[in-house]
Amino acid sequence: MVTVIKIGGNIIDKDSQLQSFLESFAAVAGKKILIHGGGKIATRIGDQLGIESKYVEGRRITDAATLDVVTMVYGGLVNKKIVASLQTMGCNAIGITGADANLVPANKRPVKEVDFGFVGDVKSEQLPVSTWQQLLEIGLTPVVAPLTHDGKGSILNTNADTMAQEIAKALGKVYSVSLIYSFEKPGVLLDVNDDNSVINKLNPTSYQELKSEQKIFAGMIPKLDNAFSALNAGVTKVIIGDAAKLDQLIAGSSGTTIIHE
Amino acid sequence: MVTVIKIGGNIIDKDSQLQSFLESFAAVAGKKILIHGGGKIATRIGDQLGIESKYVEGRRITDAATLDVVTMVYGGLVNKKIVASLQTMGCNAIGITGADANLVPANKRPVKEVDFGFVGDVKSEQLPVSTWQQLLEIGLTPVVAPLTHDGKGSILNTNADTMAQEIAKALGKVYSVSLIYSFEKPGVLLDVNDDNSVINKLNPTSYQELKSEQKIFAGMIPKLDNAFSALNAGVTKVIIGDAAKLDQLIAGSSGTTIIHE
Repeated sequence: MVTVIKIGGNIIDKDSQLQSFLESFAAVAGKKILIHGGGKIATRIGDQLGIESKYVEGRRITDAATLDVVTMVYGGLVNKKIVASLQTMGCNAIGITGADANLVPANKRPVKEVDFGFVGDVKSEQLPVSTWQQLLEIGLTPVVAPLTHDGKGSILNTNADTMAQEIAKALGKVYSVSLIYSFEKPGVLLDVNDDNSVINKLNPTSYQELKSEQKIFAGMIPKLDNAFSALNAGVTKVIIGDAAKLDQLIAGSSGTTIIHE
Repeated sequence: MVTVIKIGGNIIDKDSQLQSFLESFAAVAGKKILIHGGGKIATRIGDQLGIESKYVEGRRITDAATLDVVTMVYGGLVNKKIVASLQTMGCNAIGITGADANLVPANKRPVKEVDFGFVGDVKSEQLPVSTWQQLLEIGLTPVVAPLTHDGKGSILNTNADTMAQEIAKALGKVYSVSLIYSFEKPGVLLDVNDDNSVINKLNPTSYQELKSEQKIFAGMIPKLDNAFSALNAGVTKVIIGDAAKLDQLIAGSSGTTIIHE
């Protein structure tokens, strides 16, 4: 049994929320992995270094200078601060990126309409399951920055949600895996304006029903489609909800739990 | 048998020298660990961020802003670039700091005449030998940035020579360990102005003789004293020499090899 938890960038930016989340994370029983986003620190430091953030259709373009910034900030500053905190909480964290031990191999995204630059698309079937397993079996808790590598010497910026999903899928081959997306929202909502309208459970049937009734917020659909594809690839359950309620998310008493049946 | 290799900051700054060194490092047989300095990139990025480098008696003071810069640059940028390169060379590198997996516990240096700030003095006897051993036994090659942690949530800036020595000493308890300091000089010189005056072998007796004859360059004495203290703590041999000749250093045909007898 492994719990793979992704923590959203907005939490990373708020130190007291982050520390409180890390306390709950450290208390999660059994084998676990934390994948963190980068938050706004990379943009702030990029600005200070005079590196302009470029976006196309709301998506960040990672040029060479930006790649250096995210490598420093995600792989260095944010990652090591989280590790140092977890080490005070009885959690034997080891901070890594997808380049380390080749844990998340990727391809540089091919240029089509848009050149996203140094962005990695994970090579799904090539994650080294045995290396992941060995790190967990020797009692370590990987803390993963959202960076991969192309196997040709370059680091690649990579979506943290995707990394969490790919790691969960790979580990699903050898463990029962729960994949948790924790952020500042209480879960999947029936009414985006009502935080009390959380859908507690979703399975393929109820999801299709709600979708056909147009009761699922459009912005949530890609995340949910990803969640179901993770289930189909062998992940036991996917939970989406409030990072401040991690133990309740795991217990199923908060957030949205997505399962096969 | 483990080879612990420290690469000097001057090499880190020169990309073609670094790549050529990494090729030789990747080719070193058996278990190995690389400890890298930071080079001048941290100073350059600190300057760009408007963080003033402060020195007392030629030694850098690590205030909170500087600590963030070295955490980003050493732990992120430099470390992950080295890892991504080694991964292309058939070396399964994993980039870490002393905070990761608590691999190098330290104390913040006590304030005496000078407050060095967030600088770590390694807790020699507390390195987790079994964790180091487990990482090596599963076939990984640790690439270590010169950062430690205080176990209270703070990263600490730490001298890379010292880290290499402490790691070598800890592993000396369970392996035969060679500790190599590689930099841009050919070895310990009898005449600092003559690169052909390398002392090929030193043992405690010949070292004392040369020292009493004042044939050892004063600046080299602390490094050599450290080398002998590493031998006394269980390291099998210490080699000092040119990073461009790593295979010859290991073979004993270049540089200075320091041994018991």
